[in-house]
Amino acid sequence: MRIAQIAPPWITIPPKNYGGTESVISNLVEELVAQGHDVTLFAPGDAKTSARLVSFFPTSLLEEKVEWSMHLKAFYHLQKALEQVRADQFDIVHTHLSSSADMYIFPLAASLCTPHVTTLHSHFPFDHSPGGRVGDSDRYYMDWAPFVPIVAISESARTQEKMPLHFVDVVYNGIEMRQYPPPRKKRGDYLVWLGRFVPEKGPHLAIEAAKRAQVPLVLAGTIDRYMKASVDYFHEQIKPLIDNEQIKYIGPVNTKRKVHLLSRAHGFLNPIEWEEPFGIVMIEAMALGCPTISFARGAAPEIVAHGKTGFLVQNLDEMVQSIPKIEEIDREETRLYVERNFSAQVMAEKYTKVYEKVIAMNKKASEQQRRKIS
Amino acid sequence: MRIAQIAPPWITIPPKNYGGTESVISNLVEELVAQGHDVTLFAPGDAKTSARLVSFFPTSLLEEKVEWSMHLKAFYHLQKALEQVRADQFDIVHTHLSSSADMYIFPLAASLCTPHVTTLHSHFPFDHSPGGRVGDSDRYYMDWAPFVPIVAISESARTQEKMPLHFVDVVYNGIEMRQYPPPRKKRGDYLVWLGRFVPEKGPHLAIEAAKRAQVPLVLAGTIDRYMKASVDYFHEQIKPLIDNEQIKYIGPVNTKRKVHLLSRAHGFLNPIEWEEPFGIVMIEAMALGCPTISFARGAAPEIVAHGKTGFLVQNLDEMVQSIPKIEEIDREETRLYVERNFSAQVMAEKYTKVYEKVIAMNKKASEQQRRKIS
Repeated sequence: MRIAQIAPPWITIPPKNYGGTESVISNLVEELVAQGHDVTLFAPGDAKTSARLVSFFPTSLLEEKVEWSMHLKAFYHLQKALEQVRADQFDIVHTHLSSSADMYIFPLAASLCTPHVTTLHSHFPFDHSPGGRVGDSDRYYMDWAPFVPIVAISESARTQEKMPLHFVDVVYNGIEMRQYPPPRKKRGDYLVWLGRFVPEKGPHLAIEAAKRAQVPLVLAGTIDRYMKASVDYFHEQIKPLIDNEQIKYIGPVNTKRKVHLLSRAHGFLNPIEWEEPFGIVMIEAMALGCPTISFARGAAPEIVAHGKTGFLVQNLDEMVQSIPKIEEIDREETRLYVERNFSAQVMAEKYTKVYEKVIAMNKKASEQQRRKIS
Repeated sequence: MRIAQIAPPWITIPPKNYGGTESVISNLVEELVAQGHDVTLFAPGDAKTSARLVSFFPTSLLEEKVEWSMHLKAFYHLQKALEQVRADQFDIVHTHLSSSADMYIFPLAASLCTPHVTTLHSHFPFDHSPGGRVGDSDRYYMDWAPFVPIVAISESARTQEKMPLHFVDVVYNGIEMRQYPPPRKKRGDYLVWLGRFVPEKGPHLAIEAAKRAQVPLVLAGTIDRYMKASVDYFHEQIKPLIDNEQIKYIGPVNTKRKVHLLSRAHGFLNPIEWEEPFGIVMIEAMALGCPTISFARGAAPEIVAHGKTGFLVQNLDEMVQSIPKIEEIDREETRLYVERNFSAQVMAEKYTKVYEKVIAMNKKASEQQRRKIS
C-alpha cells in the first residue's frame, strides 16, 4: 500500500523526551515499513525514520521555540503536505489530531480525493488560548466532520467524545516490544506510580493505597513547573507524604530508567480520576511483566485484562484489597497479552485494515457520485 | 461588477473606535455600492453595511475577546468565505492583509479561479508571537506570492516592502468627505499633533518645534497601556513637557472630537521618524482645511502637496521655519486636494480600475493555460 503519514510538526519523530503522539506515529511508521508498505512520512527534517521523509523545514517547531499558539508554520506544513498528496498517487493519507493547530485538518482534508483518515490522539476542546480561555471554533469546524473519517484510540475515547465526529474505527496505541525486555524473574517488593503530577492521575491515592496495604511505593514522573496548580498540588498534597522509606519519589524518568524501574517492580498502580482516553504507561508496565491495578475508568477496562494482567477496581478499598493478589498474576502471560493486543505490529496491522475500509468507503462514495452525475 | 469583499473578522465594520483597515474597508464598500456595483461583504454579523452581508458568526472576534494569536476562528471565516466565492459567480474577490491571521490568504486564495486581489494595509513581519518573537513563516508563505496580486496603499509602502510580493498597483486610502465639514474661516492659533504615543510618531519633536516657534500645541491620542515602552515614553519624555499653557494634552479623541479639534487648528505637525506606509490623519487634517507640515518620510511626500496643502521638511529646523508659512496656504484648496486625491469616491474608482486590470490578467492567464492544454 502507498501510505502518506502526515505528522504534526511540533515534536521530533521519534520524540527525544515527552511526546506520546509522536512516539505512536514513529512506532506505526516503522512497523508499516517493516510490513512491506511504501510509506512517506511528512515531518520536519530532524525526524529519524525508515520511511521516505518529506520535510518542509529542517527543525521541529518546539525545538526552535515556536509557541503552541502560533499556527502559521504548522499550517504551512499541513498545507504543503496535502498539496503534495494531491499531486501524487497515494492509496491512503493518515493525519493525526493532537493539538490546536491540527484542527486545520478538518477544512483542508475534507475535500481530498485521496482516501483519508485521521487519528484523534488527544481530546476536545482544541480551541484554547495560552491563557486557558476556551473558544468556540471547535464547534464551527464540525461543518467538515462528516467528510473526515476518524479513528479513536479506545472505545472509551470514542464514547466519551461529545463532538459529532465521523468515527470509523478504534485502533489501540502500540509499543515497540523490542524496547521492553521480557519479564525478569527476580523483582523488588515495591509498587510504582508513574505519570505527571496532577490530581486526576491520582498519585495521592496511590500513596494512600500503598500505606494501607503496607507495601513500598516508588513515584516517578514530572511536575509541570509551568502549571501553578500542578506545582501547588505536588507541594501541598504529595511532598508531605514522601518519607523516603516507604514512599519514595525519584523524579522524571527517561525510557531506560522507566524500563529499569518497571521491570523490577512488583506491580503498577493507576488510580485515575478521569476518563483517560488511553494510558500507554499501563501497557509499558504490563509488557515488562508488571501487573497493573487500575480504577475502571476511561480506557483502563479495555487495556487491563481483569485477573489476567492485573485488576480493575472501583475504588480505593478494592485497590488495597487487590494488592496482595498481584502475586497470583502470571508475568509471562501479562507480557504476552500486551504483545498480542498492544504491540506496534498489531497496531500497524489494524491500521492497514482501517485503511482498506476507508479506501472502500471512498470508492463507494465516488461511484455513487458518478452515478448521480451520469 | 459583482464584487466579493472579505474583511478580516476581528474588528467591527465600520470600527467603533480604533481600526484603520476596517474604516477603509467600510468607506470602500459604501462607495462601491453607491457607484452601482453589486457588493457582498463577508464579515461578522455586527457589521453595518449597504452591501449584502454574509456572516459566519454573529460577533467580531475582538468583541468576544478572542486573542490576536488564536487563529482558528479567523481561518474559519476566510475558509468559509472562499468556499462560497468558489460556489458563486463573482467578477472579483478583494481580501485585506492587516494582521497575522490574514496570512492564510496566500495559500487559500492562490488557487482561486475567480480573479482576486488583496490590499496590504499593514507591513511585514506578520509572523510574530504575543511575546514579540518574530518567526520565519512569512518567508515560507511567499511560495504562493506569485499567485496573489497585491495592492499597496502608497508608492512608499510598495518600495519599502522587502518581501517578494506580486504588486499590481497602488491605491491610496480614502475618507468619506461628508464626515469632514468644509474648512471654517475662524480658527485658533494652535497646532495639533495626533496619534499613538510612540517615539517614531514624533510627539516629542512636535513639542520641540512648537516651543521653538513659540506657538501653542495641542496633543491628542492614545497611550498604549499594554505596551510598557509606550507608557514609559509618555511619562518620561512627554509628560514633563506638558505645561497646560503652551503645550496641552487632551487625551484620546473620537471622530467627533477629532473633527472639532482639527477644524479649528492652525496647522498639523507630523514629525514622523519611520517610513509610515500611509498616514490617514494627515488626510483628515487637510480635509478640514488644516495644513500639514510633515517630515518627508514614508508616504508623506505622496500625501502632502508641498507649498499647496502644507510643507514637506527634512528636519526639525525646517519644520520650525515652515510654521510661520502656514498662513500662506489656501485652506479651501487644501480640502479640495484631499477631495480630488484621497476621497472614498476616488479610492473606489481606482479600485474598480484595479479590479478590471486583475480580471484582464486572469483572463489572459486562463487563455494561455487553455492554449497550452490544446
